[in-house]
Amino acid sequence: MAEYKKQKRFTGKRGVKANSGKKYYNNRKPQKRKKQPEKSKPSIKIAFLGGLNEIGKNITLFECEGDIVLLDCGMAFPDGDMLGVDLVIPDFSYIEQNIDKVKGMVVTHGHEDHIGGIPFLLSKMNIPIYGTPLTIGLLSNKLKEHSLFNSAKLNVVNAGGRVKIGCFEAEFIHVNHSIPDSCAIALHTPAGVVVHSGDFKIDCTPFVGNMIDLHSFARLGNEGVLAFLCESTNADRPGYTATEQTVTSSLDSLFRDAINSRIIIATFASNVNRVQQIIDCAEKYNRKVAFSGRSMVNYMKVAEELGYLKIPNNMVIDIDMLSRFNPEQIVLITTGSQGEPMSALSRMAYSDHRKVVVGEGDFIIISANPIPGNEKTVGNVVDELLKRGCKVIYEGMYDVHVSGHACQEELKILQKLVNAKYFIPVHGEQKHLRKNAELAQSLGVDKKNIYIGDIGSQIEVNEKYMKELSPVTAGKVFVDGLGVGDVGSIVLRDRKHLAQDGLIIIVASLDVYDGHVISGPDIVSRGFVYVRESEELLDEIRERALNILEDCADNNIKEWGTIKNRIKDDVSKMIGQKTRRFPMILPILQEV
Amino acid sequence: MAEYKKQKRFTGKRGVKANSGKKYYNNRKPQKRKKQPEKSKPSIKIAFLGGLNEIGKNITLFECEGDIVLLDCGMAFPDGDMLGVDLVIPDFSYIEQNIDKVKGMVVTHGHEDHIGGIPFLLSKMNIPIYGTPLTIGLLSNKLKEHSLFNSAKLNVVNAGGRVKIGCFEAEFIHVNHSIPDSCAIALHTPAGVVVHSGDFKIDCTPFVGNMIDLHSFARLGNEGVLAFLCESTNADRPGYTATEQTVTSSLDSLFRDAINSRIIIATFASNVNRVQQIIDCAEKYNRKVAFSGRSMVNYMKVAEELGYLKIPNNMVIDIDMLSRFNPEQIVLITTGSQGEPMSALSRMAYSDHRKVVVGEGDFIIISANPIPGNEKTVGNVVDELLKRGCKVIYEGMYDVHVSGHACQEELKILQKLVNAKYFIPVHGEQKHLRKNAELAQSLGVDKKNIYIGDIGSQIEVNEKYMKELSPVTAGKVFVDGLGVGDVGSIVLRDRKHLAQDGLIIIVASLDVYDGHVISGPDIVSRGFVYVRESEELLDEIRERALNILEDCADNNIKEWGTIKNRIKDDVSKMIGQKTRRFPMILPILQEV
Repeated sequence: MAEYKKQKRFTGKRGVKANSGKKYYNNRKPQKRKKQPEKSKPSIKIAFLGGLNEIGKNITLFECEGDIVLLDCGMAFPDGDMLGVDLVIPDFSYIEQNIDKVKGMVVTHGHEDHIGGIPFLLSKMNIPIYGTPLTIGLLSNKLKEHSLFNSAKLNVVNAGGRVKIGCFEAEFIHVNHSIPDSCAIALHTPAGVVVHSGDFKIDCTPFVGNMIDLHSFARLGNEGVLAFLCESTNADRPGYTATEQTVTSSLDSLFRDAINSRIIIATFASNVNRVQQIIDCAEKYNRKVAFSGRSMVNYMKVAEELGYLKIPNNMVIDIDMLSRFNPEQIVLITTGSQGEPMSALSRMAYSDHRKVVVGEGDFIIISANPIPGNEKTVGNVVDELLKRGCKVIYEGMYDVHVSGHACQEELKILQKLVNAKYFIPVHGEQKHLRKNAELAQSLGVDKKNIYIGDIGSQIEVNEKYMKELSPVTAGKVFVDGLGVGDVGSIVLRDRKHLAQDGLIIIVASLDVYDGHVISGPDIVSRGFVYVRESEELLDEIRERALNILEDCADNNIKEWGTIKNRIKDDVSKMIGQKTRRFPMILPILQEV
Repeated sequence: MAEYKKQKRFTGKRGVKANSGKKYYNNRKPQKRKKQPEKSKPSIKIAFLGGLNEIGKNITLFECEGDIVLLDCGMAFPDGDMLGVDLVIPDFSYIEQNIDKVKGMVVTHGHEDHIGGIPFLLSKMNIPIYGTPLTIGLLSNKLKEHSLFNSAKLNVVNAGGRVKIGCFEAEFIHVNHSIPDSCAIALHTPAGVVVHSGDFKIDCTPFVGNMIDLHSFARLGNEGVLAFLCESTNADRPGYTATEQTVTSSLDSLFRDAINSRIIIATFASNVNRVQQIIDCAEKYNRKVAFSGRSMVNYMKVAEELGYLKIPNNMVIDIDMLSRFNPEQIVLITTGSQGEPMSALSRMAYSDHRKVVVGEGDFIIISANPIPGNEKTVGNVVDELLKRGCKVIYEGMYDVHVSGHACQEELKILQKLVNAKYFIPVHGEQKHLRKNAELAQSLGVDKKNIYIGDIGSQIEVNEKYMKELSPVTAGKVFVDGLGVGDVGSIVLRDRKHLAQDGLIIIVASLDVYDGHVISGPDIVSRGFVYVRESEELLDEIRERALNILEDCADNNIKEWGTIKNRIKDDVSKMIGQKTRRFPMILPILQEV
């Protein structure tokens, strides 16, 4: 824990203490609709910034009386058409424009789509950050990789704790989710209380830890909540999400079935409680545990250091030690449950893993469902594993996975408990947001008190009204290698063009005096057709280009833009007619 | 029907007549285990050619006593990593090597993954093709597009009919599926009877036409079947596929709900019976019907001409006429149920359709489930439609779609009826094939009599044994524009590289005598970074390249390969360090 010494620490259910000795926060009850004789009660502005289809997922901005508090700052993985992009982060322009107002950021939990963008924000503005111990632990690791840890102002707040940020007081409320130490946030502001659910489900019998703190939601509801921002991921699923305990019995019976095999389990590295279950099972069935995949190793290190993962002595072995044990003595816990091409499980499936070779003796459990968009890659990995003779448990074959998000009945319960005046569905695609809005309506919330936003939407809320303001600058920023934001639409358009049909380069050296061709034109193609099979076509292109160049010289056309365009148009047309393909044509001229 | 006059015609349940007058086939019962005193009974060889993960889907080859019959010849759409590829077809090498033996092809039904590859095969060898009327009708259309119709030898066989092809006799057996006129095929051969299920389900109450001809399967089972090739698409789904009639009542109630809206329904163009249902509903609720999307218009034309689609007079209007009617008078039936980017529904969603603008008054029904891999694109289209205020019915929200494939109980029934000695699961990914094999085992089939193949697998089957032979040449061939097979792994690798990080071209003209730089080096980049923001980096590249070129000239290094490699390595390393990106580096030198 020494490495977190710089962090301020706010703890306690009843009071919040900053161990830096600077401040002491009382756990005040939120002001209860005091009459303000001079001026009317202020408003709170909420803006949804960044991130693909899922509004509010990546970063939400709250402004009251000139103070801004941010909530979460995630990243997303690129869609298939964002060629070559490594990560997608929110556009910070609006925050930068208002940098003087920004007092800090509260973080609900440690998933990448909630903390992954923070290093990119902190490299622009070093604002204080508040989160629970595991969240801050995982964030610390991330900031170290970006060399931002030493300067960062990280503050640990335990669930149940409160912290003052500008005119806001943020209350952290324990919820169940697929990573420990997840919280909802109640923002107590001069304009009233705004609750953000974070990612949550109601699990009355979680495998580790407590049930979601429904009492606090109930208290807030009693006292009066202005607006409730509620996640919508599973809003189109009826009923309840099953308890994590259902996984326990499935895992147990699978361990019994796999008696003579090596067991390999893929799950999300962040699902620490799932890993704990697997470890408990391994202990019961006398198996050693090895971890595979960089993020798995990293997460387990932090989770164990902070006490979120209990591993018996001498149970974990290094992956290099696998050969010293019999298959039936091993459980290998690995990344790759989403079929990611470079992940450990994919490498095993395609015989590309340096240390693990899979085959008939392997019993493989994928303890996760494919995230929408990953169905096919996961399917391909399963297929390869089956071809190698592995036994594979995937998808809905057994209850080896439960969602981390609330289904309709749970959403309704929390909505009723919080009982807010205004309902704002967040976290989800439009279809999920609308479904969640329908749930609220079914509970009696007036349609005009429900707001469905989009990326960049901004609203103003107070006791009298909720109204839409003009949108703020928002959207996706692409990270490619070390570059942030330098891959834009033009670069992507070019990449798409190149990816579709490749390119043809036409190079010629022209006489500086009369413009006639001195060398070339030479034709170079990449990604178009295999050159040896299309010599003839390339010859034709060369001849066509030569004719144009000579014609231009003869007619005293010296403007290179004109010459290049003529070559481009003419050659493109010719190739299109002959092949129905439209490679990028790049004429390059030099004067000698 | 005039345009099919060239086709021979085999009809009748009891006898098969070729109206060319050439031949008359008796509907003989297959020979029943005659004793052959001289030689032992022959074998049949089965080879699985082509097509992604789904073996046997695209083309299956049967060989007996030197005669080859092909079954189906489909195409597939490219995976995301097959950049720029339009279609994927099977590798025909093995068929071409055995061209003298090939007597013909039987086609089970008219879906693209069963007929889409035929034009490419026919352009290499003009073999006779046998199929049911709708299948041949759809194929004819396709062949006209490829200018192959006039020479093609197309033969219409009605379900229940038989046709002799070499030493084979092919019996067409009516099955239920998501396109009318689908058949299973029983190949009566000197080695015994081999049954191929085609794509099927058991629908006791189809919306149009008859239930699957279980009697014929039962008869074959009684008489003795050597091998059963059975589709596996839904082999991991328990229970039964619901009857098409469940869609009827859902559609009816949705039409009632949508009383004041324009209705837009997206479905597969080939699902003629589904379209018939929609038309019937439109008639009931007094709406006109318009078709949108090229393939929808084409399919409906053929289906109506051949009598598979009954449209009341004056019901269909041209899409240009939409504005003359009120929204509540219209049903628009469109392609795009898979969210395909260029499809009619996608264009509507992204406001890119020239004739249809969607908005609040639209009630949109997606009467199809996303094919694995399309979940995200379909989701995005739904999201866009919702944002525009449309009401959208998608996925499992109502019973607006049923699968065309058999679930476990149906698979078991057909397997038991056919009662073959050898069971060979086909059509599906490995996980589906294995699941189908498990079903067969659960019915008592010995594991050694079950064969799970892969693309290129070949087996030999006779009454005594089933054994695996060495695999044949098989795999995917890419079609890009007019090119078939000229986009191979090198071209794809280049496209991927270009798509990832773009390219940097370094052009210089060198003195023919001393190798020193006369012009350039000039730097051109595409898809790398937006040039204006990276002038400095491009300057550095230019300087680095110039230094290398001059250094080579000074040291009398004249071999261009060496010079280019030095530039490539050096510049690539420099860019990698500065940006962590690895664009393609293309040095181009000219001598002047």
